[in-house]
Amino acid sequence: MSFSLDARLSRDTDFVGDLPLCRVLLMNDSRWPWLILVPRREGLVELADLDATDRAQLIEEAAQTAGWLKAQANADKINVGALGNVVRQLHVHVVARHAGDPAWPGPVWGFGAAVPYNKDEARDLIGAIRAALRL
Amino acid sequence: MSFSLDARLSRDTDFVGDLPLCRVLLMNDSRWPWLILVPRREGLVELADLDATDRAQLIEEAAQTAGWLKAQANADKINVGALGNVVRQLHVHVVARHAGDPAWPGPVWGFGAAVPYNKDEARDLIGAIRAALRL
Repeated sequence: MSFSLDARLSRDTDFVGDLPLCRVLLMNDSRWPWLILVPRREGLVELADLDATDRAQLIEEAAQTAGWLKAQANADKINVGALGNVVRQLHVHVVARHAGDPAWPGPVWGFGAAVPYNKDEARDLIGAIRAALRL
Repeated sequence: MSFSLDARLSRDTDFVGDLPLCRVLLMNDSRWPWLILVPRREGLVELADLDATDRAQLIEEAAQTAGWLKAQANADKINVGALGNVVRQLHVHVVARHAGDPAWPGPVWGFGAAVPYNKDEARDLIGAIRAALRL
């Protein structure tokens, strides 16, 4: 299965691991716990570019990731989105939101500037995600 | 199957029809063709609140709706999102985006004020959606 990750996604995130369909990435923005799922298929842009089996798997992986993130971050809401206006490669954002966070109740995309994790924070969070998702 | 639509969703949209799982609504905002899918189940907030069968159906209906909307609107990209920061009832946005539209490449949620359709525009668009999705 050929798969290459968009350079911008690679630059803005840390690698976490691979679920059966998707690569799991941690957005390097400590303002909100934010994972990105990228189906490991070449040439995807829209949901319709996946076959139905992969679509079902994608939403299972999104729901699994979202459920874990909501509990782990004690979030008020999980935002799930596939936008792709900037990065065309199909990817799904899974973002933990808290009432009163800087962008609340608006969306996080395009909001202000990322606040990178320090190395220890990122390592601990990635370790927790790997353990929870068995990556 | 008990189902009641959130009052805010009802206020901001026009009813289009019912797919097997979801109610299809047209957001009353002519700035961008924007559909909302609401699974007709009671008490849903997150994707994890659906069972896997319904999740698979939801993403099929989202992909079907998105595919039609992309072609119909000659869109550059479809944005799909389940946010729920304002309206908690689980709903999926399917929005046609064009490079250079007022919010491009940012998200549409929370951007400026809606520009309602006039009655003829809304009627024609709803008719086209119903025909395309066999509603």
